[in-house]
Amino acid sequence: MNETAFTPRFSETDAMGHIGNTVVPVWFESARRCIFEAIHPAMTLEDWPLIVAHYSIDFRRQIFLGSEVTVKTGVEKLGNSSMTVYQQVWQEQQLAAEGRTIMVYFDYKQHKSIPIPETARERLVPLMVAP
Amino acid sequence: MNETAFTPRFSETDAMGHIGNTVVPVWFESARRCIFEAIHPAMTLEDWPLIVAHYSIDFRRQIFLGSEVTVKTGVEKLGNSSMTVYQQVWQEQQLAAEGRTIMVYFDYKQHKSIPIPETARERLVPLMVAP
Amino acid sequence: MNETAFTPRFSETDAMGHIGNTVVPVWFESARRCIFEAIHPAMTLEDWPLIVAHYSIDFRRQIFLGSEVTVKTGVEKLGNSSMTVYQQVWQEQQLAAEGRTIMVYFDYKQHKSIPIPETARERLVPLMVAP
Amino acid sequence: MNETAFTPRFSETDAMGHIGNTVVPVWFESARRCIFEAIHPAMTLEDWPLIVAHYSIDFRRQIFLGSEVTVKTGVEKLGNSSMTVYQQVWQEQQLAAEGRTIMVYFDYKQHKSIPIPETARERLVPLMVAP
Repeated sequence: MNETAFTPRFSETDAMGHIGNTVVPVWFESARRCIFEAIHPAMTLEDWPLIVAHYSIDFRRQIFLGSEVTVKTGVEKLGNSSMTVYQQVWQEQQLAAEGRTIMVYFDYKQHKSIPIPETARERLVPLMVAP
Repeated sequence: MNETAFTPRFSETDAMGHIGNTVVPVWFESARRCIFEAIHPAMTLEDWPLIVAHYSIDFRRQIFLGSEVTVKTGVEKLGNSSMTVYQQVWQEQQLAAEGRTIMVYFDYKQHKSIPIPETARERLVPLMVAP
Repeated sequence: MNETAFTPRFSETDAMGHIGNTVVPVWFESARRCIFEAIHPAMTLEDWPLIVAHYSIDFRRQIFLGSEVTVKTGVEKLGNSSMTVYQQVWQEQQLAAEGRTIMVYFDYKQHKSIPIPETARERLVPLMVAP
Repeated sequence: MNETAFTPRFSETDAMGHIGNTVVPVWFESARRCIFEAIHPAMTLEDWPLIVAHYSIDFRRQIFLGSEVTVKTGVEKLGNSSMTVYQQVWQEQQLAAEGRTIMVYFDYKQHKSIPIPETARERLVPLMVAP
């Protein structure tokens, strides 16, 4: 799985003294950059073919300020026009959260889903993980 | 269901020109205030008995800057020590997103889940919605 | 001055138990909507003529979760191509923070500042406050 | 000056297609970790002696998604109970923003400013920059 490091930020803590649960989707989205880069190395904001349709997150342990976090990212399922991305948050050798995001190939102009192109599909194979 | 209004913020837009998908958990958390107030009107940060164990969100439509959003919140299931909160985002009379959050009664000192007290349970009944 | 209400969000607290100092620019930006609406009621994201060149904030008191905040917004100075917006945060009848933002009329295509049009200038007069 | 790297996040872009101006204080706060670590290597959230009294930021260039950002941090002035931290944002060898933050040694229990201890003062000397 692809690994991306994050340093928890003071602004990401909340009044409970830990990292707030709303921060994890932000890290996950940022770590999914590996998906975008695999699909299309020169992908620009003007030509962005993906939209998030769903995500779910399970919180296993509290995450704290003061030690690095690693987000692991892989593709669990490749459908016709959508894919399921599986991600984990690790801190101090322990699984702190895991989640799944369904992203759909989407034509923002026609406002509808489109099939994942064959070239993108091939580039995603190295990121595949067993479900 | 309880209704909370949000004005989408410029900082909540992203480069796709719509409200980013990471904003919805922030609105949902803020709208769950009705749950906290039902449980314990004088609930303070020093005596906070809940932790988020899970959430999932389905995104139905893009959300845009420029018109108000309403978040509707209800309790779908009341377990022994956990509850499932069901929430919706509406914009311009259309359902834009819906999600479920599992919150666990939690003793931050002993670091373990605890049963939902009977008084809290009674106060949550008016917020119940059919699953 | 224009008044905009904000309900502090749980995700806006930090580990000190108060609202983090990075939240105030977010509220200020959101409250400057009155400036945009004054200038051009149908202002769209495709035709956005302003860029932030500078801001400064003085923090007078801690801001807490649990009671509403009011942001007051006025225009302190109208230059040739820039304006200074003055804003305050109030909570429980006390001034908690105040700041100034310099916004420049900006042509994003030509990448340079442009004069504030006369019609915009006229519409901003009702928002003027003494420095 | 201390250097901290940041990868701009998708959620930090706004509808103008660039990184929003409200993100810079978040990066600055996170990069000031070098100040906290200098003062007190084992500084814990329970014993946090600093509060932000003021900051100002000048935005020199737009910041974009897709290339790393470096935040440089130094101490410009050391007063009796406060210090001025000077910070810069660099992207692609160009200065994109710079700012100053005044932090006050603060006793959260007594609710008043306190003198910077001599040991902290000594540890901050290596971070000093000419104003």
